[in-house]
This record gives sequence, structure tokens and C-alpha cells, in this order.
Amino acid sequence: MQSLKVELGSRSYPIHVGPGLLDRAELIVPHLQRRKALVVTNTTVAPLYLDRVVHALQRAGITCLSCELPDGEQYKDWVTLNQIFDALLSNRCERGTTLIALGGGVIGDMGGFAAACYQRGMPFIQIPTTLLSQVDSSVGGKTAINHPLGKNMIGAFYQPKLVLADTDTLATLPDRELSAGLAEVIKYGLIRDLPFLDWLENNLERLLAREQDALIHAIHRSCTNKAEVVAADERETGERALLNLGHTFGHAIETGLGYGEWLHGEAVAAGTMMAAELSAAMGLIAGADVQRIERLLLRAKLPVAGASMPVDRYLDLMRHDKKVDDGRLRLVLLESVGRAFISDAANDGQIAAAITARIPK
Amino acid sequence: MQSLKVELGSRSYPIHVGPGLLDRAELIVPHLQRRKALVVTNTTVAPLYLDRVVHALQRAGITCLSCELPDGEQYKDWVTLNQIFDALLSNRCERGTTLIALGGGVIGDMGGFAAACYQRGMPFIQIPTTLLSQVDSSVGGKTAINHPLGKNMIGAFYQPKLVLADTDTLATLPDRELSAGLAEVIKYGLIRDLPFLDWLENNLERLLAREQDALIHAIHRSCTNKAEVVAADERETGERALLNLGHTFGHAIETGLGYGEWLHGEAVAAGTMMAAELSAAMGLIAGADVQRIERLLLRAKLPVAGASMPVDRYLDLMRHDKKVDDGRLRLVLLESVGRAFISDAANDGQIAAAITARIPK
Repeated sequence: MQSLKVELGSRSYPIHVGPGLLDRAELIVPHLQRRKALVVTNTTVAPLYLDRVVHALQRAGITCLSCELPDGEQYKDWVTLNQIFDALLSNRCERGTTLIALGGGVIGDMGGFAAACYQRGMPFIQIPTTLLSQVDSSVGGKTAINHPLGKNMIGAFYQPKLVLADTDTLATLPDRELSAGLAEVIKYGLIRDLPFLDWLENNLERLLAREQDALIHAIHRSCTNKAEVVAADERETGERALLNLGHTFGHAIETGLGYGEWLHGEAVAAGTMMAAELSAAMGLIAGADVQRIERLLLRAKLPVAGASMPVDRYLDLMRHDKKVDDGRLRLVLLESVGRAFISDAANDGQIAAAITARIPK
Repeated sequence: MQSLKVELGSRSYPIHVGPGLLDRAELIVPHLQRRKALVVTNTTVAPLYLDRVVHALQRAGITCLSCELPDGEQYKDWVTLNQIFDALLSNRCERGTTLIALGGGVIGDMGGFAAACYQRGMPFIQIPTTLLSQVDSSVGGKTAINHPLGKNMIGAFYQPKLVLADTDTLATLPDRELSAGLAEVIKYGLIRDLPFLDWLENNLERLLAREQDALIHAIHRSCTNKAEVVAADERETGERALLNLGHTFGHAIETGLGYGEWLHGEAVAAGTMMAAELSAAMGLIAGADVQRIERLLLRAKLPVAGASMPVDRYLDLMRHDKKVDDGRLRLVLLESVGRAFISDAANDGQIAAAITARIPK
């Protein structure tokens, strides 16, 4: 097991990465405020891992209940969120009860948001079971649900008490989801960690083959990057926005096609290529850099072109995203491979051209 | 105009109390992050005051939109909250737009919660137009919506940037709502400000006659009390819970009868009498004290007995409230008139007897 810490003063918390963590109630119990917990999971993860977590906690003397939601980004909405509140209230959970989110990014985002709102805030713990949630969404306290007009539009900054990333759970992950997680792993290399990008280029096949030591290294290194960024800028007033490389383009794909069609990581991969094209068109990086990024994403079995939607539809959806300030789109661009920055310098024509370059003909 | 400040470090904000404030855009503009605002109000308040606020801001060069919700506690739910998000998104409001809540407690609670969640937090301003919201709910950052199983169960602590209490708006307030506001005013006297309670006993008829100088004094003094408590304990880990005198009993009435049947202040008045009965039964205050409180509430035209529900129903609903810790009901009791404390010492039999003493035969 490898561990690190997200440094946020009184709201600091540990992240543990390694195999066999689901059964280790002794890692969880010290973080419980009261000896009662409710595990939120979905119908895919429940048959695989729910009993192990519940039984481990019950053996440790914790009253442990559960709540199963339908699986998929299309359920990241009010109606499903209310199922969590119904479970909390009908089980008489007090505000000292801990909510445990067991699943991928959707479960973590919804469970965290439910915890942020229930009785104005109850403690919660993340047990991410997908690569994407282990390297990205479970860390840093961003929680949300979607609105028909925009992804993650309704949410809160709300930090967990603990993140437990059990790498054994990746054994049951569909290939498509493993690749989606790699999109966010590669992102850290692109925006702030060139040595890690080099490592990924040298070890990608080991990750695809799910070699434990490679996965643990990639997850730990990704979380370390994220923890540094979050510690410096918890509420995204500055540097944290760099983590959104490819996301404004990607959210347009996810919202435009209907939630659940593309996986988030897939949309981020295509969006990253659009951001790379735009960075090249603005003279920031070379064409060879764009090709280098494309090569790595292709090896990770990720899309390098977006969904077939009219360019105007992309632009319209992007203007609905959260990264708009006083009417200007603020995008993450690459000033070099391994270094990103925020810019509102691109005009609509340049953005449209970058999108067009990455829409299937 | 009288002013005070809620001291919360970087989240401190001013409260202004006085006549004619709705038109004074110059009090609002310095608190706007961007020159755009959305006013959330209801169909009762809109015809009275919406245009004045919107026009004042537009004259000051602010882009100002509005959103009208149905009026009543029964609409303090997800469905109505979503109308605010729809308005924000369809008007392309960015996270720098300011939400202005213009109305009573329901509008303030929902508008504040919408602001807390929209894009994970946008600035907001309270312009309370009822006595209850001017003396209590607009100050201190508690926001929420109701759940069928419990009042204010889903919410956030989220502070406004400014509170503007225009006492002219009380001229159009129904008598019943004026009385409901007085319940919370009297509360401050009972829990921590005996001189203010004396003043209220000497000036109640002036308040009922809506004399401006008496109203301004009562609102300013109430807000001063609330601001002191909130500054010392923003997230209700201790002293702030004293503000809930009568509320756990009162929430049982509101939830049990269906939201909107009793006004919140009416339920608090009846709940305050139950808390007083319990305090007397536990030997804390005298029977004469109970009668003194009853006399003042009756003069304020408030109910001094609860709704006709079985005692078991009261107890069941109270156990669903937020003031439960490790299964024990934590209630606000009076150790003397003018001084409250938190106690979980009362057993179910004692609580049931206090309720029974205040249910209509």
C-alpha cells in the first residue's frame, strides 16, 4: 500500500493506494465520527464488492447500511440523488453518520454531493473502483450532478475524510473504462509532469495489461499531482483550472450527445486533441507535439476525434460550460508538452478551426 | 438606515436596516462580482417590489434578470429549486453572476441554496421582505429545501454578500405573517437578551401597529443577536443551536401537518411553549415564567398550543429532525427567562408530557 495526503489544513485527508483495501475496515474506522455508515453504490458494483465492504465494517462493530443506484452518467441527476436522501432519511441517518461512496466517478460525484447537502453536511469517504475515479474524480472534493443544459452544473466543493483506492477492483473493469481512466492519467503528464509522460510512453502496455505495480505507480503519481494542485487552489480560482485540459470541449460532446453515450474519459481524450490543435494553431506547440499526444492516446485505445456535431453546436455548448467569465471562453492550452496555462486569447474562429480539425469528416 | 456586520473573516458581510432600501442600487452594486444579477422572487412579492429592484439596478448599468416562483412553504422543494437552475442556465448566467433573493424565508432559503450549488457556488444577496426573514432566516447562511420526511433536510451553509432589510416592505405584510416574525424576535429575548425581552413586553403594541422606529429597533437588535451567535459558531457545532429554541417541536408540527399549513413562526411559538413546559417540568424555570412567555406570545397573536396530533407522532417526527445525536434528542431548554442551553437530559416520558400539556384537548 502506498499513501499520500491532500493538505488542506483541518480538512486534510489521506489517500491509500494498493490491493486488498476493501476488506481493511481498520483503515476506515478511525475516520468515522459515529459508528454508523451508509454505503452508496450502483447495481454493477454492488454484486462485485458491496458485501465485502459492508461485512468488513460490520465485523468491526459498525452499523452499516447500503443504497444501490442505477449505473450510468445518465442517472447523475436530481431524481437519483433523491434516492440517496430517501435512504438516509428512511434509515434515520443523523448528521454524524458517514456516507461511503463505492463505485466510479458518477457514484463519487453524487455520493459526495448528497453528503455535502444532507443536513447541510455529513462526513463522507470515497472508495473509487474505476481507474478514472481513482486517479481523478475521488480526489479534491468536486461533487456535482448534471443538468440537461450542462454537465456538473449543480454541485459543491466538499472534501472526503479518506480515499481508499483498491487496485484489485480494476481487475473487473471493462477495457473501455480502463482506457477512459488513462485519458486523465495522461492529462497529468501533459499539464505539469513531463517525466511522468515519458514514463507513460514507456509503460503504457503494462498499464493496459493491468500489471499491479504499474497501476499503483500511475495512480499514486496521478493523485500526487492532483493533491498538489488542490492543496494550492482548492476552489479553482487559479491553477486548479489546469486540470480541465480538454474538458470544455469534452463536456460539449457529453452534453450534446446525451449523458452516457461517451464515457467522460473518452470525451476528455478527444477534447485534449482539440486543445492540442488549438495550441498548435496559436503557435504554442509544434505539429510534432500534437502527433506525439495523438500517438499516446491512440495506444491507450482512446478516441482522438470528437463526436459528429456541427461546430456551432460545440461552440454553443461550450459557452454554457462553467469555464466562461464575462462572456469569454477560458480554455486550458499547452505552452509545451508537460506545461499548461489558462487563456481567453483564442477567438471563435480559431476555436472552431481546432474543433473542425478533430471532427470525423 | 442602521447597519451592522456579521463577522466571519473573509466572508463577513453588512446588514442594512431601514426604509426605502429597495431603490438604493448604490448599496448593492459594490457587492456584485460582475455586472449581472438574477433576482429570485415569488408571485406574491413580484407585483409589489420586483420592478423597483430590477429598475434600480438597470439604471445603475447592471444586467438584471428575474425568476418568479410559486409562493409557499409547500414549494420549498427540488422541483421549484430546479426552476431557479433552469432560469440561471437558460439566461447563460456565469458563476460570477449574483443571485438576489427577494422575498420571505422560503425565497431566501431556496435562493441561497441554489446559489450555493450553481456551478458549485455563485455570489448571492438577501433582500428579505417579511419580518421573519429580516430578523432571522436571511442572516447567518443557513440555506435549505424540505424533504417529505423532514424540514430543511437538504441544504448548505452559504453566506450572502449583503443583507438589505427594507422596513417599508413590512407595510404590505399580512397580520398573520407579522406575528409569525415576532415569534423569532421574542426568541432572541428568551435565549440570550433579557433587556430586549423587557423592551418587547413594553413595546409590543407599537410593533403590531408597525411603527417604523420600533420595527427598525427590533430588527436591528435581533440581527445583532444573531450576528454575534453566528460569528462565534458559524456551522452550529455549539452555541448556534440555541437559536433553535422551540424549533424541534415546531418542525414536527410543520412536517406532520404538511408544509404550508402553519407558518414557521407559528410553529416555533407553539414549540417554544412546549420547550418552556419541559424546562419547568425539569425544575429549571418556574410556572410563572411559563405564564410570562405565554402572555407575550398571546399578545403577539401567536398560538401557544401545538397542532392536534398524537404525541407519538410528535416524538417520531422529532427523532427525524437534525437535532439528534447518537439517538438522543438534543433540545434547547431555558435555564431562566433570557438564558437557554442545550440538553439531552429529558427522557421520552418528560418530552411527551410537555407536548401533551400544549396540545388542544
